[in-house]
Amino acid sequence: MTKTAPKGMRDMLPEDAMARREVLETVEQAYRRYGFVPMETPAMEYMDTLRAKAGAEIEKQIFVLKDGELGLRFDLTVPLARVAANNAFAKPFKRYAFAPVWRYEEPQRGRFREFWQADVDIIGSKSMRCEAELLCAAYDALTALGFRDLKVLLNSRKILDALATKLDIENKKEAVFRLLDKIDKAGQEKVRAEMEEVIGAQKARELFAALGAKGDAKGRLTAAKKISEEGAKELEEIISLCPFGIEIDLELVRGLGYYTGPIFEIKGGEGIGSIAGGGRYDNLLGLYGQPDYAAGISLGVERIMTLIKERKAEAKKTYTKVLVANVKPEFYRNAMEIAAQLRAGGIAAETDLNGRNLRKQFDYANALGIRYVAIIGEREIKEKKVTLRDMESGKEKSISVEDAIKELEKC
Amino acid sequence: MTKTAPKGMRDMLPEDAMARREVLETVEQAYRRYGFVPMETPAMEYMDTLRAKAGAEIEKQIFVLKDGELGLRFDLTVPLARVAANNAFAKPFKRYAFAPVWRYEEPQRGRFREFWQADVDIIGSKSMRCEAELLCAAYDALTALGFRDLKVLLNSRKILDALATKLDIENKKEAVFRLLDKIDKAGQEKVRAEMEEVIGAQKARELFAALGAKGDAKGRLTAAKKISEEGAKELEEIISLCPFGIEIDLELVRGLGYYTGPIFEIKGGEGIGSIAGGGRYDNLLGLYGQPDYAAGISLGVERIMTLIKERKAEAKKTYTKVLVANVKPEFYRNAMEIAAQLRAGGIAAETDLNGRNLRKQFDYANALGIRYVAIIGEREIKEKKVTLRDMESGKEKSISVEDAIKELEKC
Repeated sequence: MTKTAPKGMRDMLPEDAMARREVLETVEQAYRRYGFVPMETPAMEYMDTLRAKAGAEIEKQIFVLKDGELGLRFDLTVPLARVAANNAFAKPFKRYAFAPVWRYEEPQRGRFREFWQADVDIIGSKSMRCEAELLCAAYDALTALGFRDLKVLLNSRKILDALATKLDIENKKEAVFRLLDKIDKAGQEKVRAEMEEVIGAQKARELFAALGAKGDAKGRLTAAKKISEEGAKELEEIISLCPFGIEIDLELVRGLGYYTGPIFEIKGGEGIGSIAGGGRYDNLLGLYGQPDYAAGISLGVERIMTLIKERKAEAKKTYTKVLVANVKPEFYRNAMEIAAQLRAGGIAAETDLNGRNLRKQFDYANALGIRYVAIIGEREIKEKKVTLRDMESGKEKSISVEDAIKELEKC
Repeated sequence: MTKTAPKGMRDMLPEDAMARREVLETVEQAYRRYGFVPMETPAMEYMDTLRAKAGAEIEKQIFVLKDGELGLRFDLTVPLARVAANNAFAKPFKRYAFAPVWRYEEPQRGRFREFWQADVDIIGSKSMRCEAELLCAAYDALTALGFRDLKVLLNSRKILDALATKLDIENKKEAVFRLLDKIDKAGQEKVRAEMEEVIGAQKARELFAALGAKGDAKGRLTAAKKISEEGAKELEEIISLCPFGIEIDLELVRGLGYYTGPIFEIKGGEGIGSIAGGGRYDNLLGLYGQPDYAAGISLGVERIMTLIKERKAEAKKTYTKVLVANVKPEFYRNAMEIAAQLRAGGIAAETDLNGRNLRKQFDYANALGIRYVAIIGEREIKEKKVTLRDMESGKEKSISVEDAIKELEKC
């Protein structure tokens, strides 16, 4: 029998599953403070729902069910667009969704066929306040996760589109955007060479001269205004609303997506790539029969998990703070009662489920990284106390359950 | 274009999604206090992994992917068994998993093709302490969800199996168990009549006489001991370890599952059916190549959500406590800053993303059930205060942000 998870998919064993849950819980708390609410949709959609947005390239990646009528979602935006187009929500409708999506791609390091997305989107407002709120909420979430020196990059599809029109390369826009999107990975030089092949040396020079505007935000805005007054003014408004520095990067493309206005990306600090990205996509909902304004930002859950794990020396193996050990099997019920009191005081506590001797119970605590053991024997029961042992130092002290709760709360 | 979720599946709009998240968060907190850790596996498994446990009936219900090699999981126990058989965890291995599963069944009221399971299981101990812990943890979780008058029912497959041997009906055991399992829905009388057809009138009488032992726990245990001394002693141990009343119900079967020892069910109080169930399944892991002891309990997430929604007059539409409204658009940035201060103080706060006038901002708060509006105008900015309006009473007061946080924390 095949004993593994399907090709390109992963089991999240407790240490990883805990890391992912902690990331998502922190992000969820941040988003809720902004008034975003959860929405959840089935893993499957009708194929025609998926096809409406997919495009040929992504359609090939859909996991199709046997009857051919249903497929697994490849992102969380399609179901959002379907639901938003078929329900009357108070506007703006602000929802978050954290869930797995599936794409049939060749598995690579760090790329899986099942992966999680964490999206927030705002439906129903054309104001740049949305973009500012999405950036603030993601920035708060990432800060709560411990990221520092975040770098926010901003551009606009309106500027890129206007430039394509100006250079008369609209018919090659897709190839051009695709190349620009590769700069981070392939490097400026290589992309410039390929760009010359696509649009010719003269236009490539003009393109990079326009996009490569150096200098401070003000200088770049001035350059951007020459390409698209409207697009640049929108960026200016977003920058004026955000309480952190934002860099204008006219080479930012954000894939081949459906973006129509501002696009943005958050980088996780020195040497760390993009950990969040999004933009405005006002045309998508129309595909589902009810046009409306829309903007969203998506966090790279996998990338964030990897970074956090690298930062922490060791992943947590448990949430448990104390093992309530019984000196003899007949004290097990007493150990259960002490554990119940600890739990009622908010302290995660375990007891010995295997009928092991005290030494073996210590071994279990050590194996799981449970730092404290509360020992329950004859004397402890008589004195209504526990012997609290710090497994790191080996020190023990006799203490009441109430005091043990106070002590364990601190660590 | 099809505008709905696939047949038999549901969109969880914010009110429902929030209810489900709140149920699962509460349960997760309770389980963590017992030292259970999360484990997550892909939605898909290889078909031979699924088939190892499925049986003909469930195999028909598997959502198969187009290539025929993969299928969507129909429960969370199969992936657990596969992973546990292929990883060396410290024992006991105690994990929880909350996730959707898929079954291709004819949709009915309250039965869906995608539904959530919330499982906790303990791998690697044959002690009845596991059963006691599973019942205690589920009892705590349900109590934290607000359930009172919970009723815990207990039986053992060892008793049912011994009785089948004693009555010499082992070859009809499946049909007999299936019938017993129907008692709650079809009633005693109907099941008795059908039982007579299956095993004859004489044996049916003996069966129901043995199972129908009335009286208190002690009396039933005595009756059970006559059938299986070992099975009954195990139940006795579980009862002695649990700090709540447990009823022995010898007619309890828990489906056609793979149970090998104690089985149990928790009912949600007067007139409410089963909301949790489980048991010991020591033979399952052997199917995946590495035999081990195992026991688990599963919460009925959908049933619990329905009950909680019925209990609450109205479902929450938001987590937001206050809308920070701007009197004029030029005060929006100030409103954002006040909102940021409120959020830093743990208060979920929204601002106006659409550029609406004050009246319309009030309407939005009312539509979402946001009770408080903090108004920001010229005077408020100058005085470094906000005007906090209670939308229910219409009363307003001028107050500092710090005091607003204190006030809003209370409600």
